[in-house]
Amino acid sequence: MSLLVVGTVALDSVKTPFGEARDVLGGSATYFSVAASYFTNVHLVAVVGRDFPEEHLRFLRSKEIDLAGLQTLDGKTFRWRGEYGFQLNEAHTLETQLNVLQSFKPVLPPSYQTSDMVFLGNIDPVLQQEVLRQVKRPRLVACDTMNFWIEGKRDDLKQTLKLVDIVIINDGEARELAGEANLVKAAKTILSNGPKTLIIKRGEYGVLMFNEKTVFAAPAYPLEAVFDPTGAGDSFAGGFMGHLTQRGDLSEAGIRQAVVFGSVMASFNVESFSLDRLRGLTRREIDDRYREFGRLTSFEHLQGV
Amino acid sequence: MSLLVVGTVALDSVKTPFGEARDVLGGSATYFSVAASYFTNVHLVAVVGRDFPEEHLRFLRSKEIDLAGLQTLDGKTFRWRGEYGFQLNEAHTLETQLNVLQSFKPVLPPSYQTSDMVFLGNIDPVLQQEVLRQVKRPRLVACDTMNFWIEGKRDDLKQTLKLVDIVIINDGEARELAGEANLVKAAKTILSNGPKTLIIKRGEYGVLMFNEKTVFAAPAYPLEAVFDPTGAGDSFAGGFMGHLTQRGDLSEAGIRQAVVFGSVMASFNVESFSLDRLRGLTRREIDDRYREFGRLTSFEHLQGV
Repeated sequence: MSLLVVGTVALDSVKTPFGEARDVLGGSATYFSVAASYFTNVHLVAVVGRDFPEEHLRFLRSKEIDLAGLQTLDGKTFRWRGEYGFQLNEAHTLETQLNVLQSFKPVLPPSYQTSDMVFLGNIDPVLQQEVLRQVKRPRLVACDTMNFWIEGKRDDLKQTLKLVDIVIINDGEARELAGEANLVKAAKTILSNGPKTLIIKRGEYGVLMFNEKTVFAAPAYPLEAVFDPTGAGDSFAGGFMGHLTQRGDLSEAGIRQAVVFGSVMASFNVESFSLDRLRGLTRREIDDRYREFGRLTSFEHLQGV
Repeated sequence: MSLLVVGTVALDSVKTPFGEARDVLGGSATYFSVAASYFTNVHLVAVVGRDFPEEHLRFLRSKEIDLAGLQTLDGKTFRWRGEYGFQLNEAHTLETQLNVLQSFKPVLPPSYQTSDMVFLGNIDPVLQQEVLRQVKRPRLVACDTMNFWIEGKRDDLKQTLKLVDIVIINDGEARELAGEANLVKAAKTILSNGPKTLIIKRGEYGVLMFNEKTVFAAPAYPLEAVFDPTGAGDSFAGGFMGHLTQRGDLSEAGIRQAVVFGSVMASFNVESFSLDRLRGLTRREIDDRYREFGRLTSFEHLQGV
C-alpha cells in the first residue's frame, strides 16, 4: 500500500523558552512524511522556492520519501516564524510569509494517482479537493485543517469533510468547527457532516478519537523535556497514517493501534527542535515506546468486584 | 478494613453557565465520604455549625457513613461560594466563610483510632498531622492539599508529606508545590519529599499517577453534559480510597484499578449540582462505567510489527 500527503514544506524560525532556531526545516507535509517514513513509502505533494536548501532534499530522499510531486517554483519557500511560552501548548505566530505557496496548484505525477491512503494536510480546502480528484479510489482519506480555513472557507471545508473518512484536528479547531464548547457534542456535530472518524488532538493531554459508536482516549507520553512542540500534530498524523498504510488494518482495533503509533511519533518529535529527533530514530525505539504506552495506560479489568 | 476521612463539610453556593444552587450540601469530606460509601464504611471527621440542616445528616447516615467524629459547634457551618465559566475547568471563589472551621480541632472517637486507611482532606496541614497522631498504625495514608497551604504553611505541609504514602493534588498544585512547570520533573521532586505515590488530577484531562518506577495515565470520562465540577477531585479521592479499602490490594495493579474507580466517581459527580448524581447511584452503574473506561482506553499490544 502507498501513502500520499499534500501539505506545506517550510522554513521555520522558532523560539521556545529553551532556545531558538532560525530557518530550519519545517512544514506540515515535512513532519508528516518523515514520521510516516518509518512505516511506509510516502508520496509527497508540496511546493518550495528556489532558495530551498539542497541538504533538506537530500535528507528527505534519504528517508525514501518520493519527491516527484514536490514542485520548485520561482520565488522563496513558505516561511513561518513563531514563539512558545513556558506552557509550550500554543504557538504564537509572529510572521507568515506565504511566498511560493500563493501560487501552489497541486499536480499529482501519474505514479501518485493510485495511492491507497491519502492525507490532506492543512492547506486550502479547495486544494485538498483538487488533490483528491486526482487520486483513483483511495482506500482511506484523512484530512487536517485549521481555524484560518474554518473561519475563511467554511463552505469549501464542509465539502472536503464530506469526502474524507477521518478528520484529525485539535480541540480548539473541533470546538470552532462545530460551534460547540463540549467536545463530545462537537464530535457528534462534526461526524454528522460526513467523516466516519474524528481524532481530536489535545497537545500534552493526548488524543480523543470518536466514531459513531465508540470513544478512544490515548494519553500523550509524559516527557521530562519538551523542547519544541512544532510539528507534533503532523508527526502524529504521519505515524498514524504510516502505520495504517503499513498494516492495512482499518478495523477499529487497527485504527486505535495507529493512534498510539501517532502519539509515539509526536512524543519523539517534541524532544528536539525542528525534525532533529525524528531524523535518526530506529524502528526499535518506536516499538519500545509503543510498548511503554501500553504500560502507561493498562489497568486490570473488572473481576469479581 | 475501615476508612477514615478528615476534611470539610460545607454549605456551597455555586453558579455555572447551566444554573445556580444556593446553600447546598458540599465540602471535601462530604464528597469523599459519599463517593467512598459505595465501596466501604467511612468514618467521617469534620465540623458543622448549629445551622447545619438535619436532612443532610439523615442523608449521610443513610449512606452508612459513621458520623461519630462529626462535631457540631456553636456558630455557622463553613460556607463556600463560587462560580464557573464556560470552560468549567477552574472555580472562581467568590466568598469563603470559615465560621466554625476556625475553631476546629479534630478529635477521633476511639472507634476511629484503628482505621486501616486514612484520607487527610484539604485542611490545615497541622490538623492533618493531629489526625494522624490519633490513628494507630494505618496501612495507608493519603492526603490532599491546596495552594493556600502550599503558599502559607509550606513547612508544615512538607512535614505532612513525610508522613503519607499517597499525595492526591491537581496539576497546578503539583507545579506550585515543586516549583517546576514540567509535571514529570515536578513529580520527581514531590516524590523525593516522602510519598511513594503521587496522583495528579487534571480535570477533564484525567489523572497521571507517578511512583518511583512507573507512570499511569487515566483519561477522564468524556461527558456530553458537565453541569458542576465542584467536588470532582474529592469524589475521585473517595472512589479511589473506597476501592482500595474494599479490596485491600495495595499493589500497583490494585492502585491503578482504584484510580479508575476514582475517575468513575468523579465522572458521575460532575453530571449534576452538589451531590445529586452521587446520591442515588447503584453499584451496577459504577461497575458498568468502570468497564466503559476499559473500552475507552484499550488498544492492542504490539504483535509481530
